[in-house]
Amino acid sequence: MAGLLDALQDLVAAYRILAEHGVIDAYGHVSLRSPENPERYFLARSLAPERVTRADLIEYDLDSRPSDDGGRESVLERFIHGEIYRARPEVQCVVHNHSPSVVPFSVTGVPMKALYHMAAFIGDGLPTFEIREVKQGSDLLIRDAFLGKALAQTLASKPAALMRGHGSVVVGENLPRAVGRSIYLEQSARMQMQALLLAGPGGKVTYFDEAEVQASVGRQDYVRAWPLWRDKALAKLRSEGK
Amino acid sequence: MAGLLDALQDLVAAYRILAEHGVIDAYGHVSLRSPENPERYFLARSLAPERVTRADLIEYDLDSRPSDDGGRESVLERFIHGEIYRARPEVQCVVHNHSPSVVPFSVTGVPMKALYHMAAFIGDGLPTFEIREVKQGSDLLIRDAFLGKALAQTLASKPAALMRGHGSVVVGENLPRAVGRSIYLEQSARMQMQALLLAGPGGKVTYFDEAEVQASVGRQDYVRAWPLWRDKALAKLRSEGK
Amino acid sequence: MAGLLDALQDLVAAYRILAEHGVIDAYGHVSLRSPENPERYFLARSLAPERVTRADLIEYDLDSRPSDDGGRESVLERFIHGEIYRARPEVQCVVHNHSPSVVPFSVTGVPMKALYHMAAFIGDGLPTFEIREVKQGSDLLIRDAFLGKALAQTLASKPAALMRGHGSVVVGENLPRAVGRSIYLEQSARMQMQALLLAGPGGKVTYFDEAEVQASVGRQDYVRAWPLWRDKALAKLRSEGK
Amino acid sequence: MAGLLDALQDLVAAYRILAEHGVIDAYGHVSLRSPENPERYFLARSLAPERVTRADLIEYDLDSRPSDDGGRESVLERFIHGEIYRARPEVQCVVHNHSPSVVPFSVTGVPMKALYHMAAFIGDGLPTFEIREVKQGSDLLIRDAFLGKALAQTLASKPAALMRGHGSVVVGENLPRAVGRSIYLEQSARMQMQALLLAGPGGKVTYFDEAEVQASVGRQDYVRAWPLWRDKALAKLRSEGK
Repeated sequence: MAGLLDALQDLVAAYRILAEHGVIDAYGHVSLRSPENPERYFLARSLAPERVTRADLIEYDLDSRPSDDGGRESVLERFIHGEIYRARPEVQCVVHNHSPSVVPFSVTGVPMKALYHMAAFIGDGLPTFEIREVKQGSDLLIRDAFLGKALAQTLASKPAALMRGHGSVVVGENLPRAVGRSIYLEQSARMQMQALLLAGPGGKVTYFDEAEVQASVGRQDYVRAWPLWRDKALAKLRSEGK
Repeated sequence: MAGLLDALQDLVAAYRILAEHGVIDAYGHVSLRSPENPERYFLARSLAPERVTRADLIEYDLDSRPSDDGGRESVLERFIHGEIYRARPEVQCVVHNHSPSVVPFSVTGVPMKALYHMAAFIGDGLPTFEIREVKQGSDLLIRDAFLGKALAQTLASKPAALMRGHGSVVVGENLPRAVGRSIYLEQSARMQMQALLLAGPGGKVTYFDEAEVQASVGRQDYVRAWPLWRDKALAKLRSEGK
Repeated sequence: MAGLLDALQDLVAAYRILAEHGVIDAYGHVSLRSPENPERYFLARSLAPERVTRADLIEYDLDSRPSDDGGRESVLERFIHGEIYRARPEVQCVVHNHSPSVVPFSVTGVPMKALYHMAAFIGDGLPTFEIREVKQGSDLLIRDAFLGKALAQTLASKPAALMRGHGSVVVGENLPRAVGRSIYLEQSARMQMQALLLAGPGGKVTYFDEAEVQASVGRQDYVRAWPLWRDKALAKLRSEGK
Repeated sequence: MAGLLDALQDLVAAYRILAEHGVIDAYGHVSLRSPENPERYFLARSLAPERVTRADLIEYDLDSRPSDDGGRESVLERFIHGEIYRARPEVQCVVHNHSPSVVPFSVTGVPMKALYHMAAFIGDGLPTFEIREVKQGSDLLIRDAFLGKALAQTLASKPAALMRGHGSVVVGENLPRAVGRSIYLEQSARMQMQALLLAGPGGKVTYFDEAEVQASVGRQDYVRAWPLWRDKALAKLRSEGK
């Protein structure tokens, strides 16, 4: 039980960390697979991320039905989370965000590549989800299980997928990894844009090679950053009397 | 009466939200059509946005004459508001701003297009107001009803219009919609600039298609963000003892 | 005397406003011609701008010799101020800064032009001071009256001059005008850069025409912004107990 | 002893100053050669920079073995520091960072050049460390003395070296110089990127010439900024009760 409470506190911290870093604004969400039941996950009710507290977390099954929402409004796009947890047993945390430098990559044919060691995971190859391939004339939101499954299929075994004209989804085998990846995905997008402009048409950019990607990805859990991020977020939470 | 007071409190919050998001700096203004009389609107006196309180709001008729300004100085460009309310009966809120990433579009022939779902309304097509077409040698300000009418005519039935070398005007059928559109118009401008640079000359950028625009626009009222924005703005107001 | 004290308080506020807006960092300075003696000006001792108080202001003659420095260290580049006040009797305020978006213009052949109504003064034409034309192998600093005079000569009758690889100098017939121009010069530089990139090689950017510049420049004293900026700066000063 | 305590307080301030300026985030580190023994240096334990206090500093010999770590975890990449102090007797301070605008230069063939007087030291020529030349398939981290020596060899006698896909290392004959150089290296990278984009392909950018670099480098110790930076950092430290 203490384990669960700690895990949920980490999830609350994750909402606030991502908001603080500009990865999510009033939109975006992060979920955690239940440490007590792999067929369940926790996600905050429909609420701006920087206001989330433990009382706002709702438990869902993998069909994204709440165990008990107590009248609280669920997030429309919760199917992103449920369907990824179903498809990826090793994933413990899912972040959906609109981080601003990633969107331009999502609408051009330019693939994100690994060029910064803090975001070496990009070297696994990030697919882009084009919703038109499964639904014409949508508002781009993942409104149901059908769209959630299609997104999970595009994501396949990768650490993240861009969503065209919308944002991205980032996953991790633990919560700090998914949060850290989300923060450095945004940074790496800015760096790649600048490198491409600096290099100019036909210019050379040195990306990570396959061996460098493999040497980096498994190890990178952002363990140096996580306690700092978490402590600041929870200190702020306490200062609000929550 | 309580309804009116709440509406005016929303308007005060709107000034502060737009300032907080960098959409307006010491300049820029937002107005609200009176919920009690569609031939009237409220706009703050000439004052920096982040200092606006309810006591600074002045009521105007559609000729932009104050009902009772109590000696307070009116905003020079109030005709933007009056003439748009006259021309667009469904509009309840008008924002005029100089948001920095929109200005570069206003001075080039590059049209803004919808590429980000939070600003899908851009897909309705945003006209650019070129003041020279109606007045040569101006200082670009909308100093009278004649210029206000010309701007309203350029805006026509659209959700926003760029103003060459000046900024933009953004409207909504309710206040959160106009505020949210102003915030995401700025973000979308940055994203489009970056997408165009990434894609390079002749490169492809995937914009929203007509069906996607239609599926998105009607629904988007920024209802998840609005309570967060409003609460933060009003908390700050209270902390100032106002 | 009250007039002098108020004017010096404005000067203190100007230091802090420019630091707050990122126009000056630990470097940069702003001076005021004495309201009591046009052959004198006030400038802060060598100190980071955001720490300046009235006790840090030193009076100089137009040769930039302190009336009484009381042992306080003078700013090395004070000759910028003295020589401009000598050459430009109508100028009451001089700002020297390193604002970051202006430097790139100073090192390329690309002229800044007026494209944003808040910085229409750029349309008067901003010269660039190339120190090499008067001194080879310098560290680019205006270390003496000779270099100050050369800079004033380049500035001639203009509202501002870029300094190659260094920053800029901005002047005004009153203090709010020089401060406001410095803030919007930086903004306009960013906008012009973006407009040029958006338009692409050979693309068209609509700049202010001569009549628009003339209609704008004389009027623009940033009177709506100044009280907000000043009040915030002085409130902060008081909160420091100074 | 008082001298040592003051020096270590400066080092604590340096961590916080670099974090405050966005030069280092939760990663990055800065070290100081011991003022009492040139064969020793001080570096904080593995901890996010903005949390560092004097109690977190560990003394190392030039083989990067702690004198007494008291169970505290050492930074993996400490060999950067030890090997540079060994190779460069005049260096008293070493900064390792991931400052975001420098990384794009590190992955392209575009050399950084001096174009801004606050970062004239770039004109000495900044080499780029390509780890592949000494180790294939690495995670880019300087995990041992072998890699530290290779980096020190690339740095040679220069004030800084870029590290491909990783960041940079910046050195100084005193602590304020290394800190100031790190801050203005980031700024200058942004300015150079913008200047290159403004000038366009084949366009001309005016860089510092050799004489200007020489006139600037020796003098630039950021002495005007350092007391401001230090006082702010230590005031914050005190406000945390440390």
